[in-house]
Amino acid sequence: MERLYLYDTTLRDGQQTQGVQFSTDEKKVIAQALDDLGVDYIEGGWPGANPTDSAFFETAPQTRATLTAFGMTKRAGRSAENDEVLAAVLNAGTPSVCLVGKSHDYHVTAALGITLEENLDNIRASIAHIRAQGREALFDAEHFFDGYKDNADYAVSCCRTALEAGARWIVLCDTNGGTMPSEVSRIVAEVIAAGIPGANLGIHTHNDTEMAVACSLAAVEAGARQIQGTLNGLGERCGNANLTTLIPTLLLKEPYKSQFETGVKPEALTGLTQLSRTLDDILNRVPTKQAPYVGASAFAHKAGLHASAILKDPSTYEHIDPGEVGNARIIPMSNQAGQSNLIKRLKEAGLSVEKGNPALARILDQIKEREAQGYAYDTAQASFELLAREELNLCPSFFDIERYKVTVERRKGASGQYYTQSEAVVVVYVDGEKHMSVSESLDEDRNDRGPVNALSRALIKDLGRYSSVLEDMRLVDFKVRITQGGTEAITRVIIDSEDNHGRRWSTVGVSANIIDASFEALLDAIRWKLLHDSTEA
Amino acid sequence: MERLYLYDTTLRDGQQTQGVQFSTDEKKVIAQALDDLGVDYIEGGWPGANPTDSAFFETAPQTRATLTAFGMTKRAGRSAENDEVLAAVLNAGTPSVCLVGKSHDYHVTAALGITLEENLDNIRASIAHIRAQGREALFDAEHFFDGYKDNADYAVSCCRTALEAGARWIVLCDTNGGTMPSEVSRIVAEVIAAGIPGANLGIHTHNDTEMAVACSLAAVEAGARQIQGTLNGLGERCGNANLTTLIPTLLLKEPYKSQFETGVKPEALTGLTQLSRTLDDILNRVPTKQAPYVGASAFAHKAGLHASAILKDPSTYEHIDPGEVGNARIIPMSNQAGQSNLIKRLKEAGLSVEKGNPALARILDQIKEREAQGYAYDTAQASFELLAREELNLCPSFFDIERYKVTVERRKGASGQYYTQSEAVVVVYVDGEKHMSVSESLDEDRNDRGPVNALSRALIKDLGRYSSVLEDMRLVDFKVRITQGGTEAITRVIIDSEDNHGRRWSTVGVSANIIDASFEALLDAIRWKLLHDSTEA
Repeated sequence: MERLYLYDTTLRDGQQTQGVQFSTDEKKVIAQALDDLGVDYIEGGWPGANPTDSAFFETAPQTRATLTAFGMTKRAGRSAENDEVLAAVLNAGTPSVCLVGKSHDYHVTAALGITLEENLDNIRASIAHIRAQGREALFDAEHFFDGYKDNADYAVSCCRTALEAGARWIVLCDTNGGTMPSEVSRIVAEVIAAGIPGANLGIHTHNDTEMAVACSLAAVEAGARQIQGTLNGLGERCGNANLTTLIPTLLLKEPYKSQFETGVKPEALTGLTQLSRTLDDILNRVPTKQAPYVGASAFAHKAGLHASAILKDPSTYEHIDPGEVGNARIIPMSNQAGQSNLIKRLKEAGLSVEKGNPALARILDQIKEREAQGYAYDTAQASFELLAREELNLCPSFFDIERYKVTVERRKGASGQYYTQSEAVVVVYVDGEKHMSVSESLDEDRNDRGPVNALSRALIKDLGRYSSVLEDMRLVDFKVRITQGGTEAITRVIIDSEDNHGRRWSTVGVSANIIDASFEALLDAIRWKLLHDSTEA
Repeated sequence: MERLYLYDTTLRDGQQTQGVQFSTDEKKVIAQALDDLGVDYIEGGWPGANPTDSAFFETAPQTRATLTAFGMTKRAGRSAENDEVLAAVLNAGTPSVCLVGKSHDYHVTAALGITLEENLDNIRASIAHIRAQGREALFDAEHFFDGYKDNADYAVSCCRTALEAGARWIVLCDTNGGTMPSEVSRIVAEVIAAGIPGANLGIHTHNDTEMAVACSLAAVEAGARQIQGTLNGLGERCGNANLTTLIPTLLLKEPYKSQFETGVKPEALTGLTQLSRTLDDILNRVPTKQAPYVGASAFAHKAGLHASAILKDPSTYEHIDPGEVGNARIIPMSNQAGQSNLIKRLKEAGLSVEKGNPALARILDQIKEREAQGYAYDTAQASFELLAREELNLCPSFFDIERYKVTVERRKGASGQYYTQSEAVVVVYVDGEKHMSVSESLDEDRNDRGPVNALSRALIKDLGRYSSVLEDMRLVDFKVRITQGGTEAITRVIIDSEDNHGRRWSTVGVSANIIDASFEALLDAIRWKLLHDSTEA
């Protein structure tokens, strides 16, 4: 088995995704998850380029993977020692440093405005400087494939210069994402024939023609031994090569499975689906249902012919066992097929139910009916647990809502400026006793946060003996989706809550009225908390 | 130039996407759009399998593309003439018929439970039956690649049988989506060597390893001359080969550009981005920002180094000119770079503004500031027009909102059932005169449709001399997005409106308060309508 190295750049190139901006803490969480997955290198960012990246390197977690700082080759007209951009990169103190540099002659002369020889000097001196400090060095050859097509000798001479200066890896970058797999294959083979060993070659591709994964594998088949990519294919423009796809392909599919070994163990692979969803959660992105391997639809069999064959033998319409990547098969719900899945999910919620219990069929029916209305129990696991407990008679009623009323008023003030005010009244019975609460929704800056916020405050404000249990609970996220378009729009609200025990739970509400949908999700959030923390549960 | 044929299956395999269900009318709109694009075949569905597909074939538009009905080879134990499933397919009367059949020996014996020879008979008789009716026949060889790897001779004999029975095309299907491009390449070459001409071979792939596009092109490079795929890569599980990616790659990139000709003309290619968005609109799906060629981020240059180089020469960080597919470059807004883009957008809104007009800089500043707050003027083109007109002093004020008040109340009725009621009051001045309106939000079934509906009704109810202009206006879609997660959530509302002139326009509102955000979008929708239809505009 040959060793193939995985280099993750989610925290650097992944941050170039439109709309993505990691905090330092988020970078730390992701770095830890990448290390648990088993990648070989974690590129953490560009120290000195922005405060977040600098702070990350100052406080980065200890990882088995090689933490790598990214930067660029020194500028012309100064020594590597005197380039303060390069100094900031080295000062991050990582065991490994990756520098991007030009390898396309046009970019050297047009973008940098220096001679081809000066660029080679910059590469040589920068790599040598890193090596002199005892660090591992990588050279990212920017625009390598476009450069090779214009001037093969010069592109290769950039790589050779970096290699001779001590670079461990020469990474061939398809920066603009326009190169086809057959070209990648031919060019990598020619580069190896020109004397750059495949064992020192990496591949870095972009998905501008939906070929980033295919180009990465084409390079590996031609002899390259390092792949750069990102989780969920994050990255500039159309994204980078998607490690979430590449890793299972390398581990599970031939010819790679028999030929290569990576740092990712089969146990870690079963966490891949969860890892992908966690990253989306952090970024508040909607997970791509059709994502290979990890998408919610990746093993969903909608066609009738497929679904019936799957019941006989799953391999008839599945290229791998979904469990190997921690995903699950979805087939049209039938009591026959659904019960074992359901027992598994109930167990995850701490509920042990025997096969054959008639409540199982009732729970499945309820889920089916409510999902048709727009509920989403995959996401809202706390609402799922409540629904199941009710059918199992394992859920106290806690309190009884009599009514609520929410008012939003906007008017012109004396100064001619508009201001808005929300107010909610909730009337609830606890132990037969009536409690009536009212709340506004002003934040510390006295800005109105809207009707759902007011409703949540009024609801929690006075629930009798339960109020103290709810003190450490807070709403941390609120997601709204219209599940049917047009005038018949139905709203689905998902609320995420947290408490001081470090728990986070999701609940769902559905209605044509957005306030009602929110109220339903709020009630579930409170009931779940009471279920887990109040004395009678 | 060799002719390469494009076969679209959006209306059949695309409908296997989880959550996708076309109506007959939607199928007709999409078929027309596909014909305008220039594909060679439009597979409309499976006549007889469901009422929508049957109705589509009865009322399908006249197309230049060959309309094709999909079905399966006849079942064993009856003649082709007496198979009522096949009869329903033929009765659709299309000039071309595509039948799926088994080519993997395991599936013949395990799934169908018939002999290998019986399966060959079914293929032969079914294809001959189609040809006898004077139709063009295609044979979809299901699980061809998996079958070939298990029993190459049998898989090829299925293809040969179909060809000899008169099939114009033998389509090699990677049904489970697990085959790698290098395998596709080798196997297609071997099939051609075994006597099935490449000119009769098609390729049908799925995206389970993110390789559907790469596998399609690998098959073409090996000699196949028909590609099957779907718009936006719709399809079962992870989707089919994405024609929205494949078409520009074939037309714009080497080696395909010089070698092949398709039915898609460069003029149609410039409509590709719009077509992709229209399909998402029909399906109420959020367009994928990172989609190759057509995504909103496909030519967005976030990295500082890239953005500055792009200003010098776009080819430095773009593999094609975004205009060739009707997309646009996005770079951080600067007055220098943004003005020519802005003039172009204003022109699209019917506003002719000269370069150098100081209002241009003010409009850009406004857009930049408001987009940072969460507004989305790419989508809400009517709100963009209003914003620009205000800076250009081309927007009458029409009316002045004094205040509004919205109430949502939920209470237990006498029967113990909860019911909800929304009510809105709006106070507005028109020509100095005060108008006060109140409305509920009950639909025909007396169900409450929520606070935004009530607000919209109250607002339109009495706007003095403008009310008559608004009579034919209706809200047709309402989209809510939370643009910042957590407790500081900001809500963006997009409202789509229509009128009896066949116009459709989108407006946007943003606020921490969802009612306020909706009200802002509603006001813009009404103002845009008045601007275009009231006498003073």
